[in-house]
Amino acid sequence: MKKPRRKKRVRRPQPRLPPGFRDYAGNEVRRRRRMLETIAGVFDRFGFEPLETPAVEYLDALGKFLPDVDRPNEGVFAWQDDGAWLSLRYDMTAPLARYAAQRRAVLPFPFRRYTFGTVWRNEKPGPGRFRQFTQCDADTVGSGTPAADAEMIVLAVQILEAIGIRRGRYLVRLNNRKLLDGLLERAGIAQQADEQQSDMQRGAVLRAVDKLDRLGRSGVKALLGTGRKDASGDFAKGAGLSAWQIDLIMEYLDATAGSGTDIVRRLQDLVGDSDAGATGISETEAVMELVRRQGVGPDRCIVDPTVVRGLGYYTGPVFEANLAAPQSGRQPSLGSIAGGGRYDGLVQRFTGQRMPATGISIGVDRLLEAHQELDETFEQPAAPVLVTVMDRHRLGDYQEMVAQLRDAGICAELFLGNARNFGRQLKYADARGCPLAVIQGENERQRGTVLIKDLVLGAMISETATAEEWKQRAWQHEVARPKLVSAVQELLSRAFS
Amino acid sequence: MKKPRRKKRVRRPQPRLPPGFRDYAGNEVRRRRRMLETIAGVFDRFGFEPLETPAVEYLDALGKFLPDVDRPNEGVFAWQDDGAWLSLRYDMTAPLARYAAQRRAVLPFPFRRYTFGTVWRNEKPGPGRFRQFTQCDADTVGSGTPAADAEMIVLAVQILEAIGIRRGRYLVRLNNRKLLDGLLERAGIAQQADEQQSDMQRGAVLRAVDKLDRLGRSGVKALLGTGRKDASGDFAKGAGLSAWQIDLIMEYLDATAGSGTDIVRRLQDLVGDSDAGATGISETEAVMELVRRQGVGPDRCIVDPTVVRGLGYYTGPVFEANLAAPQSGRQPSLGSIAGGGRYDGLVQRFTGQRMPATGISIGVDRLLEAHQELDETFEQPAAPVLVTVMDRHRLGDYQEMVAQLRDAGICAELFLGNARNFGRQLKYADARGCPLAVIQGENERQRGTVLIKDLVLGAMISETATAEEWKQRAWQHEVARPKLVSAVQELLSRAFS
Repeated sequence: MKKPRRKKRVRRPQPRLPPGFRDYAGNEVRRRRRMLETIAGVFDRFGFEPLETPAVEYLDALGKFLPDVDRPNEGVFAWQDDGAWLSLRYDMTAPLARYAAQRRAVLPFPFRRYTFGTVWRNEKPGPGRFRQFTQCDADTVGSGTPAADAEMIVLAVQILEAIGIRRGRYLVRLNNRKLLDGLLERAGIAQQADEQQSDMQRGAVLRAVDKLDRLGRSGVKALLGTGRKDASGDFAKGAGLSAWQIDLIMEYLDATAGSGTDIVRRLQDLVGDSDAGATGISETEAVMELVRRQGVGPDRCIVDPTVVRGLGYYTGPVFEANLAAPQSGRQPSLGSIAGGGRYDGLVQRFTGQRMPATGISIGVDRLLEAHQELDETFEQPAAPVLVTVMDRHRLGDYQEMVAQLRDAGICAELFLGNARNFGRQLKYADARGCPLAVIQGENERQRGTVLIKDLVLGAMISETATAEEWKQRAWQHEVARPKLVSAVQELLSRAFS
Repeated sequence: MKKPRRKKRVRRPQPRLPPGFRDYAGNEVRRRRRMLETIAGVFDRFGFEPLETPAVEYLDALGKFLPDVDRPNEGVFAWQDDGAWLSLRYDMTAPLARYAAQRRAVLPFPFRRYTFGTVWRNEKPGPGRFRQFTQCDADTVGSGTPAADAEMIVLAVQILEAIGIRRGRYLVRLNNRKLLDGLLERAGIAQQADEQQSDMQRGAVLRAVDKLDRLGRSGVKALLGTGRKDASGDFAKGAGLSAWQIDLIMEYLDATAGSGTDIVRRLQDLVGDSDAGATGISETEAVMELVRRQGVGPDRCIVDPTVVRGLGYYTGPVFEANLAAPQSGRQPSLGSIAGGGRYDGLVQRFTGQRMPATGISIGVDRLLEAHQELDETFEQPAAPVLVTVMDRHRLGDYQEMVAQLRDAGICAELFLGNARNFGRQLKYADARGCPLAVIQGENERQRGTVLIKDLVLGAMISETATAEEWKQRAWQHEVARPKLVSAVQELLSRAFS
């Protein structure tokens, strides 16, 4: 016999978010909005069309193109619905491939679209690692020309400068997956009999190369060989390459030193023998030339054969834009803020027909977090003028003042909290950063006036002003009620000039 | 023994969306973006702060406040993650309650926030019924004054007019849940011994009243009684009220006829005896007076005691804005485009402490779909100037032209498709709606010129122009290469003036 269950106490839910999720409030939101508007302006100018696909798709339509598949507990948020698996999108490219395949009969090709959207990754949450973030992408589907790839790099450059990142504060690094393919071919990794074994080793090598920034030469070398112990003491198994294979790959990584032509010449020696490598070199030269013709020189875009980009679906040119630290030296890079490349197989998954495509993704959240200078570009808007409540039976009068201010385009609000304590109203104005407070008590009402307090000046005076300044600058003004709007306008224009 | 499974053929995924989801493309997206920017401007002016909460929350934090719980197969999208239930948000109010409770020690109260966001409902999909849509909300948390409710109505009015809906094309209808409570009390439904039975009957009555628009008097009457058969032949069980109860409720519904003061007087007779009813009447009068003081008269906002609003959590004033059909008569309303009300219990769920709140929600998708006039207000931006490719070996030259046009702020692009067939390039320009095409073949190159084709004029001429016009208006211009940008500017300004 079952024990009778004890009646549960009614428990209150906890007001909290699941790990890996966060809120954005106030000027954080305004800054991001302004940034996205600016980016949209550049996309529009480049002739891209906006597209918004839904957050939820069939799991099989999205496919599995997640980066860094070696980490555990990672993937997508998915659930079953009427027998079918649905999933939250993990990037904006997989939904684009679905869209382009679905509409291939009616879209004008090359199809150029941009999109802003939320994506979700079911990663193990950790400090600074979020499971929801914003992606901002542009892609050209149905074009195989290097001009389409070059355009993506110029787009990145123009966007970074449009949102206020100065020249010299960022650098775009271009590579080509075919160069890496050529390298793997030369190292004898591509042609092994056991296909699965070959794929695994390929992946292990690319992931090791991708970690050059973080782990340095010795770390990469260990990962190419038997493996290495990381900071937490966990042992990461290596790719198991032999000494000559490792040497070849390290030589490739060292090709980054020197100028652009040097790099290409050295790559020619290293991988030019293989078909893939030769194509990779000629595509890289073509992209660099087209980028240059659009005014972007080696101070803003260089060839860097160590760039991998995590996503497995890239097939040709790949690039990454990094922020440089304000003080050069020490920390060379603040991480990738934009990147992309060519992926010729993604639409083919659906249609069986080859459909070349190339794209760019802007790391909006990272840009907003990493780049403090943006605060200057996307300054905060004015906080509201607060109309206070001196007499709770005259709400209509106060509300009328608010309405008149708003009609004149002034950001204004009525104090809607408990009006009994006037100090609390000024405290609220302070917390909101209100520049002015409007007051009409019984005396003012009888005189037909209102009192306007300059809260910014008031705070300044009480903290720092000399007695002389105190006398000279009025921070409280009594004006005739009909002059409320013009007096507020006058005071605001003074405060912000 | 199990049968050996047959090896599955590699199947291609279908490029399609789950039912109830859709894509938005091109000017649909631009129109919505312009609309949200306009709405944000009004919210800012009213002193609301933007907030963005994540799409995913703990299921128990969101609670179950879904509308219309009588429909089957309805609810939220939820799944288990590390043992806890996560869910996609179904509205923006439940996350706000979580946020306000979580930050109650640090937020300035009354807390005024607005938000734009995607919400998801796991409804049975059907024609025109979507499972993902955009919500656009403003709420004031921590204010019990009718001035906060009145402000929401004025906000609705100002937003509708800011996005181009003319006065007379919409109407806000105000009600108060306490009036409905008073009615239920008078009808003897609120005070039954069996609490669960009472709740169910209450819900059934409110849902019946809510259907007045759709089903008319007789339909509501049937639903209050034994029930009714709907168009599909399904029988909907009724609330099971007795004849006198039904008569009382129908009398209440008939109170809508006549002017504002008439309505209030009639409601006074009907529900003024009950405490809830009396409070409902005085709150309604206070809100109407404050709305009037902000310049919004009975041509834009009226009292309508039949307004219910689906969501279960409303506790005081509720309102709904409806679009009126362009030709009055016949179809009185195109459905609700904005609505909201007071909900004093939502934050209390977390904290145990009373926290009054009121809010508004704008039906962005419905507005964009229903209201064709918006097309005029949010007109489409210029399509790109297309630089064509006559010689595939001179991509750099063409790309340079594109870069110069873009640098001058002109929306421009290079044709990135297969350039062999020139006709295909012009067909692409046509599909994209390009106003101009730039051409430089070998002849032009030798002469140091470019050819600019006016595609709009070209199409017009070939379709409708007389021979006289054909002679007078040049639709193809050969200009010196250095004059490309100024010539394009000149032609564009002519085309759009």
